[in-house]
Amino acid sequence: MGEFELIRRYFAAAACAQAAPGVALGIGDDCALLEVPAGEQLAISTDTMVAGVHFPDPSDPFLLAQRALAAAASDLAAMGATPLGFTLALTLPAAEPAWLASFARGLDCKARECGLALIGGDTTRGPLCITLSVFGRVPAGLALRRDGARPGDLVCVGGPLGDAAGALALVLGQRQAPAEIASPLLARYWSPRPQLSLGVALRGRASAALDVSDGLLADCGHIAAASGVALCIERDRVPLSAPLRRLLDAPAALACALGGGDDYVLAFTLPPRFLAALQAEWPLRVIGRVEAGSGVHLLDDAGREVEPPAGGYQHFGSPRD
Amino acid sequence: MGEFELIRRYFAAAACAQAAPGVALGIGDDCALLEVPAGEQLAISTDTMVAGVHFPDPSDPFLLAQRALAAAASDLAAMGATPLGFTLALTLPAAEPAWLASFARGLDCKARECGLALIGGDTTRGPLCITLSVFGRVPAGLALRRDGARPGDLVCVGGPLGDAAGALALVLGQRQAPAEIASPLLARYWSPRPQLSLGVALRGRASAALDVSDGLLADCGHIAAASGVALCIERDRVPLSAPLRRLLDAPAALACALGGGDDYVLAFTLPPRFLAALQAEWPLRVIGRVEAGSGVHLLDDAGREVEPPAGGYQHFGSPRD
Repeated sequence: MGEFELIRRYFAAAACAQAAPGVALGIGDDCALLEVPAGEQLAISTDTMVAGVHFPDPSDPFLLAQRALAAAASDLAAMGATPLGFTLALTLPAAEPAWLASFARGLDCKARECGLALIGGDTTRGPLCITLSVFGRVPAGLALRRDGARPGDLVCVGGPLGDAAGALALVLGQRQAPAEIASPLLARYWSPRPQLSLGVALRGRASAALDVSDGLLADCGHIAAASGVALCIERDRVPLSAPLRRLLDAPAALACALGGGDDYVLAFTLPPRFLAALQAEWPLRVIGRVEAGSGVHLLDDAGREVEPPAGGYQHFGSPRD
Repeated sequence: MGEFELIRRYFAAAACAQAAPGVALGIGDDCALLEVPAGEQLAISTDTMVAGVHFPDPSDPFLLAQRALAAAASDLAAMGATPLGFTLALTLPAAEPAWLASFARGLDCKARECGLALIGGDTTRGPLCITLSVFGRVPAGLALRRDGARPGDLVCVGGPLGDAAGALALVLGQRQAPAEIASPLLARYWSPRPQLSLGVALRGRASAALDVSDGLLADCGHIAAASGVALCIERDRVPLSAPLRRLLDAPAALACALGGGDDYVLAFTLPPRFLAALQAEWPLRVIGRVEAGSGVHLLDDAGREVEPPAGGYQHFGSPRD
């Protein structure tokens, strides 16, 4: 038995330890088998992260696994899907037990947090590269798509933006900060928490949704294009976390929030009648409105359109590139 | 828009051109959505191929795409699943239009042959690496697993073995052969035909099944271990193709058939009462029988156990490594 066969058994053991409702057959056969209840659809997303492109190489394997799975699971949140399972395609230069043990622990932690069971995959030798496919279920017709935004809807986000982009200089060792600032930002970068419960709560309410991974303005542009509407974002209503505001000056923090990816916060459009009930449970922020037209428009506090701030963050991390 | 975003649009256009029953939402949102009919389960498999590890680098992109998708789809055949769709995670060093066009054509050809629709994926920059996840549906309880072989069952294969292993020296340019020998062997290597219809026909009949990808003896070992039985293979009944027998001497051809991977022919165990009906439709070959015990035993024409022939093929291609 080769070392890579041993790795497969290692992950298989980890997978068996997880409760896995909906998983009829897990690792070990030619295919895994998932159950999808009648009246529901299966949601599927695939994300790849390449060493040196989407994360620094080397990176801590525990953190890396958490970040890769969180990024993939966030696509389930963006569709309003209930997590079922995931497959791991892991390509790595050598089978180092300590690295693998740490990677598997990180994967297991995030998988439990997200309610995702490891159901299969492949382990191969080559340059470090991680492809995760995630599977969830959603009642037919209730998936949160990008094409339903209508004029009059509110534009909302599920929490503060820009933390991951702001953290990047810390991740790369280009900047130092006291622990009370650096720690929460680094946690947002390395272990984003996919907003899975919020996604489920938005079913039947949000008219369009996605997770912010390319940057708020770019992602709002995807909704505008798919829905055939304009999204108007009020610059001063974009939420910034306290640590980000302490790390960076106001223009730089705003640039991170508007252009940085990797926060994996949900952005969505919402008919106003649903706002009160959702805000009672979730720390949503209304940041703008949907209008007739096209594109994304950034407005100042007087309602005048302004240019997005330039720069302010480095792009090294979105699995979409 | 970056070049990789353009690539995604390129594949998206190709995906839309395909008929896609069971695909409620394809490329372009956070997730794809699949419909799984009531009473059926979703079969999922993921395979990675890395340049220089699982295929020569460079390789013809048209052929490479065909081989990668065939290898992945073969896992659906091995479960008796009806193909639905697949995701492509393609990591490549640069976006070369000619390479991509050829790769997309190869992918499209094999996808149509297999009845698989491209439903999503990711395109990233990095060392060439292809991860395919394939999805199929199978009536609940009828998937072909590895753990049902029982003493008294026949051991069968869906066709000749060893062609892909025999072709490898031709692929690598280490050996020459006349076109009437080389062409069919190279076709088996670069464009294996997953035995999807045979897999469906085996539902409710075969007691265990898989596709031969690690080599016949190794794969029979997987069935023996999962089922808790012994598989006895009669050496002289293992089918060899005419081109393979012309390319290699008898011991070398047999070594390819017993140890070479990448043929993606089904190997399965079958209660004898089902044999006649299946043989009327499929060119099956009975190569042995299941007995009480453990492991895989190779027998000569007098029923004596013999050692497998050594060597005779090079291993450079199974996506299981």
